[in-house]
Amino acid sequence: MDINEKALVLHETTKGKLKMVPTMNAKTKEDLSLAYSPGVAAPCLKIAENPIDVYRYTGVGNSVAVISDGSAVLGLGNIGAKAAMPVMEGKCLLMNAFANINATPIVLDNQDVETIIEVVKTIAPSFGAINLEDISAPRCVQIEQRLQKECNIPVFHDDQHGTAIVVLAALINVIRLTHKDPSEFKIVISGTGAAGSSIIKLLYQYGFNHIIAFDKDGCLVQDQKESYDPLKQELLDYVNLDNVHYGSIAQAMKDADGFIGVSVANIISREMVETMHHPNFVFALANPNPEISYEDAKAAGATIIATGRSDYPNQVNNLLAFPGIFRGLLDARATGYDRSMFIDVSKAIASLVDEKHLSADHILPSPLDPRVVETIASVVKHWCITHQYSQL
Amino acid sequence: MDINEKALVLHETTKGKLKMVPTMNAKTKEDLSLAYSPGVAAPCLKIAENPIDVYRYTGVGNSVAVISDGSAVLGLGNIGAKAAMPVMEGKCLLMNAFANINATPIVLDNQDVETIIEVVKTIAPSFGAINLEDISAPRCVQIEQRLQKECNIPVFHDDQHGTAIVVLAALINVIRLTHKDPSEFKIVISGTGAAGSSIIKLLYQYGFNHIIAFDKDGCLVQDQKESYDPLKQELLDYVNLDNVHYGSIAQAMKDADGFIGVSVANIISREMVETMHHPNFVFALANPNPEISYEDAKAAGATIIATGRSDYPNQVNNLLAFPGIFRGLLDARATGYDRSMFIDVSKAIASLVDEKHLSADHILPSPLDPRVVETIASVVKHWCITHQYSQL
Repeated sequence: MDINEKALVLHETTKGKLKMVPTMNAKTKEDLSLAYSPGVAAPCLKIAENPIDVYRYTGVGNSVAVISDGSAVLGLGNIGAKAAMPVMEGKCLLMNAFANINATPIVLDNQDVETIIEVVKTIAPSFGAINLEDISAPRCVQIEQRLQKECNIPVFHDDQHGTAIVVLAALINVIRLTHKDPSEFKIVISGTGAAGSSIIKLLYQYGFNHIIAFDKDGCLVQDQKESYDPLKQELLDYVNLDNVHYGSIAQAMKDADGFIGVSVANIISREMVETMHHPNFVFALANPNPEISYEDAKAAGATIIATGRSDYPNQVNNLLAFPGIFRGLLDARATGYDRSMFIDVSKAIASLVDEKHLSADHILPSPLDPRVVETIASVVKHWCITHQYSQL
Repeated sequence: MDINEKALVLHETTKGKLKMVPTMNAKTKEDLSLAYSPGVAAPCLKIAENPIDVYRYTGVGNSVAVISDGSAVLGLGNIGAKAAMPVMEGKCLLMNAFANINATPIVLDNQDVETIIEVVKTIAPSFGAINLEDISAPRCVQIEQRLQKECNIPVFHDDQHGTAIVVLAALINVIRLTHKDPSEFKIVISGTGAAGSSIIKLLYQYGFNHIIAFDKDGCLVQDQKESYDPLKQELLDYVNLDNVHYGSIAQAMKDADGFIGVSVANIISREMVETMHHPNFVFALANPNPEISYEDAKAAGATIIATGRSDYPNQVNNLLAFPGIFRGLLDARATGYDRSMFIDVSKAIASLVDEKHLSADHILPSPLDPRVVETIASVVKHWCITHQYSQL
């Protein structure tokens, strides 16, 4: 059986990746009188008096909703709510297995931005945090920004920030290997969607101030601002500050110190990599087929290569970030967060590769390393407490 | 410790009445490639092609959302979303413990009827059925009716129909004991809210055509239709068809064959029961304090007495109905149901008290009797299949 057949058999056998089990007995009349009527009135009244007690007497503080409208599922596109469910269940499984979170998959039968915002806001008190997933750009950015303002629990769009955080972690270790300052890097980014836009903002915030970005229509330039959507307009604060009109990615990559692809397969040639400055990095993260294959990048002399795949060195995998981030947000009873938290998380991930193991083929820890979740959770909790985002 | 203190300690210790456990492994790279990327794309594509496959490859078919806006929680009133959470978790626990359902508590931070309808419709594809809970009347009736039309999964408001189904089950056994025809009963009902209105409709449908209903403003009469809200207007098709203007419940109870209270404590006196026809029944279901105490009803010569309490004979408890109903709806992959299903469920519950055990003090089975869920589930599944509400 190939992997698809195996996956189908496994999904059909289990019918859902998580199941619920009781934490209280419900067998005798007394059990029922404590867990349900009339005893349940006591915690209800406590919470009515003091809403923060919802963390004390219910499971809200350990629950995350994983929410999608099915508009941008994996690389499959807009396949709709029901077809998105296996992915949402998968994300919930990972949160549960890696960070002991009760994660609920919720798919939305509506792709209107305002409706999605209203629905998520309305169900928000049921959860300690919300993970948005597989919502198409630029809608996802607008939805997340609004929800962060309008909810008093953290709302995190993993497709944006998870990837960005892991990319920055990888770059922090590139810096350790190359002994260069962030400002010395010229970085070319292909893709300005969910992941690309968050990577751009986070890298700039860390000090990478020479970023050239390409979308499918070409190079982002300052003097075409009027023709861009609001998300891309925002990106002009971070990219191409000298307003150079590169005619192609190939032109921009000449003498560049790094390439980050979060776009489509096979758009980067060996020749393009050969023209880069040395040492350099090539992060070709399109999945499952990268912008340039590991083998070709290697043959073209790339110094440090990363992909989204588990079968090559340096896998940039969101799983390195989100379970620990949500664990930490829940542990802090967080009301929100801001981008400055991401840098602390990236540093924490990078620090898990010690000097002895750090090399061009090993710039990231394994997502299966149990230290990852606990380290990130502790950093995130601490960040929330010191930045007034904690309700502890 | 009294029951409230015990309940608080229990709730604080468990922090949530259900927890999730994985049904798939997530330990190795291969585990992850099957449960998540890239293997998860295979079931996504199957469902995109054929949406009914969501029942085949995901947990949707065994999941129920228990949803409240916190507007009418137990007898505590409008205590809001967060304070409703312990009750919703309790209901989820019962569904899980009694019927092996993955039930998710969802509380809504909005009490606008149209918003609630939109939110529930939008998240509906995540679940196999929806249980509305503790939503105030008459809004609950409107919300449920609209959602039943607009969703293609069953939406069931237990506060309405759960109670009605168990009351009818009790009455079916009253009929067995008294050998009377439904049309021979004059029944006085106090309370026309969520439970009362559904009881009235279901009893009428079963053949009880002489029902006199009282709300807090008095007896429902045909010629004041214009002054009623839409729900009460609808009830005029089922109650007081002779348009008798009873000045009080006491007047109506004279020579009545039965009383059903789903209203408030202590509104029925011994004297009122003494004027009833014999044999009769007095179902005083207000909780925790009934319309008339069991002792007073007994002393006044009531033939068959039921309450909502577990410490007296004949407890009318929704737990007799909803776990089996949801189990059956899920087993049928139901798209909906109509009221005629309720009668089959009531008959099934009544039938679980055999001739040998049937008596004035034993007209209902125990909710802890394991036959209850399996019998109802099988009846509901069969009903859905024979009434074109099943997707099997």
